[in-house]
Amino acid sequence: MRIANRIGRLGTETAFAVGAEAGAFAAQGNTVYPFHLGDLNLATPSTVVDGAFRAVTDGKTGYCPNAGIPQLRAALAADVSASHGVEYGPENVVVQPGGKPTIGKFIMALMNPGDEVLYPNPGYPIYESQIEFHGGVAVPYAYIEGADGFELDFDAMEASITDKTTLLILNDLQNPMGAESSAAEHAKLAELVLKHDLYVLVDEAYFDMRYEGTSSSFVSQPGMLERSVILYTFSKKFAMTGWRLGASIGPKKVVDVIAKINVNDESCSNHFIQYGALAGLEGDQSEVRAILNTLQERRDVAVDILNSIDGIACFRPNATFYLWPNVSELMATKGMDDYEVFRRAALHATGVSFCTRLHFGRETPNETNRYIRFAYSGIDVPEIQEGLGRFKDWCES
Amino acid sequence: MRIANRIGRLGTETAFAVGAEAGAFAAQGNTVYPFHLGDLNLATPSTVVDGAFRAVTDGKTGYCPNAGIPQLRAALAADVSASHGVEYGPENVVVQPGGKPTIGKFIMALMNPGDEVLYPNPGYPIYESQIEFHGGVAVPYAYIEGADGFELDFDAMEASITDKTTLLILNDLQNPMGAESSAAEHAKLAELVLKHDLYVLVDEAYFDMRYEGTSSSFVSQPGMLERSVILYTFSKKFAMTGWRLGASIGPKKVVDVIAKINVNDESCSNHFIQYGALAGLEGDQSEVRAILNTLQERRDVAVDILNSIDGIACFRPNATFYLWPNVSELMATKGMDDYEVFRRAALHATGVSFCTRLHFGRETPNETNRYIRFAYSGIDVPEIQEGLGRFKDWCES
Repeated sequence: MRIANRIGRLGTETAFAVGAEAGAFAAQGNTVYPFHLGDLNLATPSTVVDGAFRAVTDGKTGYCPNAGIPQLRAALAADVSASHGVEYGPENVVVQPGGKPTIGKFIMALMNPGDEVLYPNPGYPIYESQIEFHGGVAVPYAYIEGADGFELDFDAMEASITDKTTLLILNDLQNPMGAESSAAEHAKLAELVLKHDLYVLVDEAYFDMRYEGTSSSFVSQPGMLERSVILYTFSKKFAMTGWRLGASIGPKKVVDVIAKINVNDESCSNHFIQYGALAGLEGDQSEVRAILNTLQERRDVAVDILNSIDGIACFRPNATFYLWPNVSELMATKGMDDYEVFRRAALHATGVSFCTRLHFGRETPNETNRYIRFAYSGIDVPEIQEGLGRFKDWCES
Repeated sequence: MRIANRIGRLGTETAFAVGAEAGAFAAQGNTVYPFHLGDLNLATPSTVVDGAFRAVTDGKTGYCPNAGIPQLRAALAADVSASHGVEYGPENVVVQPGGKPTIGKFIMALMNPGDEVLYPNPGYPIYESQIEFHGGVAVPYAYIEGADGFELDFDAMEASITDKTTLLILNDLQNPMGAESSAAEHAKLAELVLKHDLYVLVDEAYFDMRYEGTSSSFVSQPGMLERSVILYTFSKKFAMTGWRLGASIGPKKVVDVIAKINVNDESCSNHFIQYGALAGLEGDQSEVRAILNTLQERRDVAVDILNSIDGIACFRPNATFYLWPNVSELMATKGMDDYEVFRRAALHATGVSFCTRLHFGRETPNETNRYIRFAYSGIDVPEIQEGLGRFKDWCES
């Protein structure tokens, strides 16, 4: 079959190959410590499960509105309004089968071919893929190491803006770095957005995955509510990655367009799961808090061991479930310049499986530091201790 | 916000407006007879429900492979191979969140901008929308009345083919007409496909919704397996419209491309529902047969009443859950030339709500006959009798 030309511009998530390699290594009888997974090995709260099952029994198994059931749109608008300090109504919410669909739909709704789109790199690789697939120009921006976390490389970002730049993708709190913008950074970024008349995808997949302090949203900056679409997902907070439910939240004008794309792409999101999510939002939050407590404990154990390893320096992000240690010194000591050589050597010597910078967008010129990504969402504390203990021994041998 | 230019080419399902009008009329205290709904008011079989619930309890709540769980791909390949008399393997199946996603993904995978695509009109309006949205030229083909059902207007179809025609969309068995191609028609169409080197989307959403005889698939024609992608859905057979599960089935080369689109668009389909569908395919089929028996009874009641009305002539399709009566004479007698005037007059006089030809693609030149669509999937026999009784009285008054 003759495949269409646009498929040549379609990217993917190369991290799946890491999972496949880890699986193959495990199949040979080896113990694998899965730090490559951006998935949770925790159960979905019973509020969600019970709400969904009840809805099936109640016959919520037929089609529902393309934009989602009104009750969920209203509940999500109320929830996000409260946590963000803004005012959204149900008309600002369009339900999606997951967080990811918002990326492509935002781009289809707002980007013309030839438009330049700022996106984080290292970052979630689907941004780059979807921008180019739909005929845009993907313009990367970077984060640099600050005193206690990663900071936007603001000057480089501004220098890359041209009169063709129309959109900005902000992933705050960020995968893979765990980076988080300060209020000052948000304010500076909002100025930039107004100055250059940009619209913004605010990917907040990890907004609620927070252990200390309070998340603040870019959309609460003056003038940004009208220019931003939030990517919301139930996947992380409610350990619902495999259920596939999320939402796009933004100005009615673009939300209506995205709902029309829903009509074309998948009719609607699963009907009864929306009742489950509604029960999750409105019900008892103790299981949600338990998920966060578990993740926080894992973070602290992992960060402490990583920072005890010679040649590794790792921030302790207050949010997400990712660590992005700087391994420049370690790789130099090991005499390994190539990420894939380093990653495979670690896997085969220790069973510790992780992603590297290579899995988060194309490398950009002048990158000198080396980073790898550890996800602690899919591995329990005893295995974190055992796996990273082995990794430490290998690093220091 | 500045909406992208491509959104100007995006269509929708105007039938939703009919549902909204019916809802508004009901809200005023009127009885509405919902013949406009392409949805089922029947319960999902317990095999599917139990299988899905069990999978949640077993922790199938995290991500699954982008192309679907291997067990479901294998079971679906076996099921479709058996019913179609062809040989598919798991590598030919990519699971989707519904039947509809296959339409857009087929077009993105195989159509270049400027390509001409043959599609049925009257037909499912999303074909027209997705072809034009992705930059193609939508070229309609029609069905004409034969002795005991609708037949492809073959000569007109062939006359519309140019050297830019690359794809054909075939919806067999057909919504809204209930049309079904004979073996001879399939053979003739396969010749045409080979002669003009076309690839084919075979939308078989209603393949298993059959009351008498056996469905035969276009893909079993010589040479067509390599040139066709089947749109498969669990929605109708298992009364699962709101669960959102289906698949694209075709040559590995295009299935791999569609799986890569899955990675970008929604990561994967719901994990535990795939176990429910697997249980539905492999479990006891008595509830599936009961659904078909119920629908057949509704069909016979509805067809008999419609054909008893002066000025209406209606085929009795062996498949789908749609009727497409010719109401040319009736509308002339009523002095109503406009579809919307006729539809609203009927709704307000009788409570009977239906779609018309207008909801199934743009009208084409030289259409002389008038048709409306009755769906009997969402209304029980007593309401069919009562509603169509009132409709008959109004028609003949």
